[in-house]
Amino acid sequence: MPLPLAGGPEFDRIRAIVNELGPRASALGGDVALVPVGGELLALSTDVSVEGVHFRRDWLSLEEIGWRSTASALSDLAAAAADCVGVLVALTANAREPEETFASVMRGVDAAVESVGGLVLGGDLSRGEGMSLAVTVVGRSAPGITRRGARAGDRLWVTGELGGSRAALAAWNAGRTPDSSARERFARPVPRMTAGRWLADHGATAMMDVSDGLGADAGHLAAASGLALRIELAQLPLHHAARAEAALAGQRSALFAAWGGEDYELLAAMPAEFAGTAEFSLTRIGDFSSGTGITFTLDGRPVAPGGYDHFA
Amino acid sequence: MPLPLAGGPEFDRIRAIVNELGPRASALGGDVALVPVGGELLALSTDVSVEGVHFRRDWLSLEEIGWRSTASALSDLAAAAADCVGVLVALTANAREPEETFASVMRGVDAAVESVGGLVLGGDLSRGEGMSLAVTVVGRSAPGITRRGARAGDRLWVTGELGGSRAALAAWNAGRTPDSSARERFARPVPRMTAGRWLADHGATAMMDVSDGLGADAGHLAAASGLALRIELAQLPLHHAARAEAALAGQRSALFAAWGGEDYELLAAMPAEFAGTAEFSLTRIGDFSSGTGITFTLDGRPVAPGGYDHFA
Repeated sequence: MPLPLAGGPEFDRIRAIVNELGPRASALGGDVALVPVGGELLALSTDVSVEGVHFRRDWLSLEEIGWRSTASALSDLAAAAADCVGVLVALTANAREPEETFASVMRGVDAAVESVGGLVLGGDLSRGEGMSLAVTVVGRSAPGITRRGARAGDRLWVTGELGGSRAALAAWNAGRTPDSSARERFARPVPRMTAGRWLADHGATAMMDVSDGLGADAGHLAAASGLALRIELAQLPLHHAARAEAALAGQRSALFAAWGGEDYELLAAMPAEFAGTAEFSLTRIGDFSSGTGITFTLDGRPVAPGGYDHFA
Repeated sequence: MPLPLAGGPEFDRIRAIVNELGPRASALGGDVALVPVGGELLALSTDVSVEGVHFRRDWLSLEEIGWRSTASALSDLAAAAADCVGVLVALTANAREPEETFASVMRGVDAAVESVGGLVLGGDLSRGEGMSLAVTVVGRSAPGITRRGARAGDRLWVTGELGGSRAALAAWNAGRTPDSSARERFARPVPRMTAGRWLADHGATAMMDVSDGLGADAGHLAAASGLALRIELAQLPLHHAARAEAALAGQRSALFAAWGGEDYELLAAMPAEFAGTAEFSLTRIGDFSSGTGITFTLDGRPVAPGGYDHFA
């Protein structure tokens, strides 16, 4: 059965594809495909980054564009508690682009893959209008963890801090120079490969990464596991620049961080008895219960969710 | 060592990437990456198809765009004598595109994958300027055959017929309706998966597919194997529409077919004693010898090669 998805125009399009392909679409809708090959469980995912949609060349260097596009794909492997074998990259750019452009982007791709022990396995180049990179990641997932599998009574935990990436975007969009650590969160996100394996080893029942914002992604996790999920936003671990940018925007910083995207932290459903002591930052933010739907509260009062949708 | 490539602007860009990544680029330059996973040899390849470069929506239906983009990627698996486990698809299109567009393209993708026994394993959608599809194919290759490995004395064979795809393009470019079988060759190429495995079983020492035209691709095969290659173009198996279109253009039909692209037939280096009897069309067109460089002759007289380059 295809994976249940929460609402939004991008997910409507995915649902239309799933309906079209019928039973042949059973693998679609998740972050990664898990495929048994030769006694191993292969983890596969494709992520496309488009100039003007996912990145701007006046904000990022070519190396950073390569790193960021690759790290966002690797983040899906992290959420499957997979290691990285390697990546394949389809790169399109204007025909007038100099040779060095391709080499610079690929240097960033390679640096991201090398940081998680993988190799650039292959690729394809084509001319096209703007620049775009489709990065396919190949890994091995011993536990085969997915978005499904959370149980009523499990708690929702999140790694790291949220809102740094949105803070950088907010500064750029206002014509300001972002806080350097917020810029780093946007330009060079670190895929949480080690955290993903650690969480799986410590009993995670479901995981996914926060790429479209907590508002959208937590909903998918609840829907895929067939559970209700309640998240108290006052508990969110906030990047310091998110506090500063939220203040400038006159917004509550928890909402600013929750509805932002591209943090590439991990959401994990953990058993109730999990104590939360880890060698990396880990924060309990919600509870799964039987039922359906997601509820966000801020200081106990319900708030309407937001998020990022590539077709909204 | 990265794979030696023949000349051309696209290959200059690949070479610049290979130089940039140094010893970490050892897997680059071939059609497929072969990666050992759990006792199996995984075959992986990514192929990007861009609107206005690889296809036009006034020439092809959305289903055909999906089929063609997928078949061109599967053709790389065929050249590795691999089977198909499945594909991942990154699809970008304009934000105003209706939901049905995505479903129609994916129906074509799925039909092509189903025809070779695979599944659509995953994908990603994004808005972008024009439409583009990056298709990553995942297969298993028992023999691990590549472009390398031809030996002096081997013969070069080609499956099927050449020039059909170029004949369709020539008709469209002249404002005419293409011959229906030529149009089919362009719109719904059949990946030669069965032929690829059969050739490997019958002693093929090197293989690749004809995607950029015989002029370009045969040069890569010779360069990768470190050999000289002589091809007599009068021996080429010609699609009937290539003869007709070449006549209209006042060109020799063998040259028209040789410098065309996107035939997705297989080139195979076979031992001298191979007799060529197969259940599919197979034609001997050349000979490998020690040395370097490729020579094309037509009725024994040397002719200068041509081909298709995405950056020329």
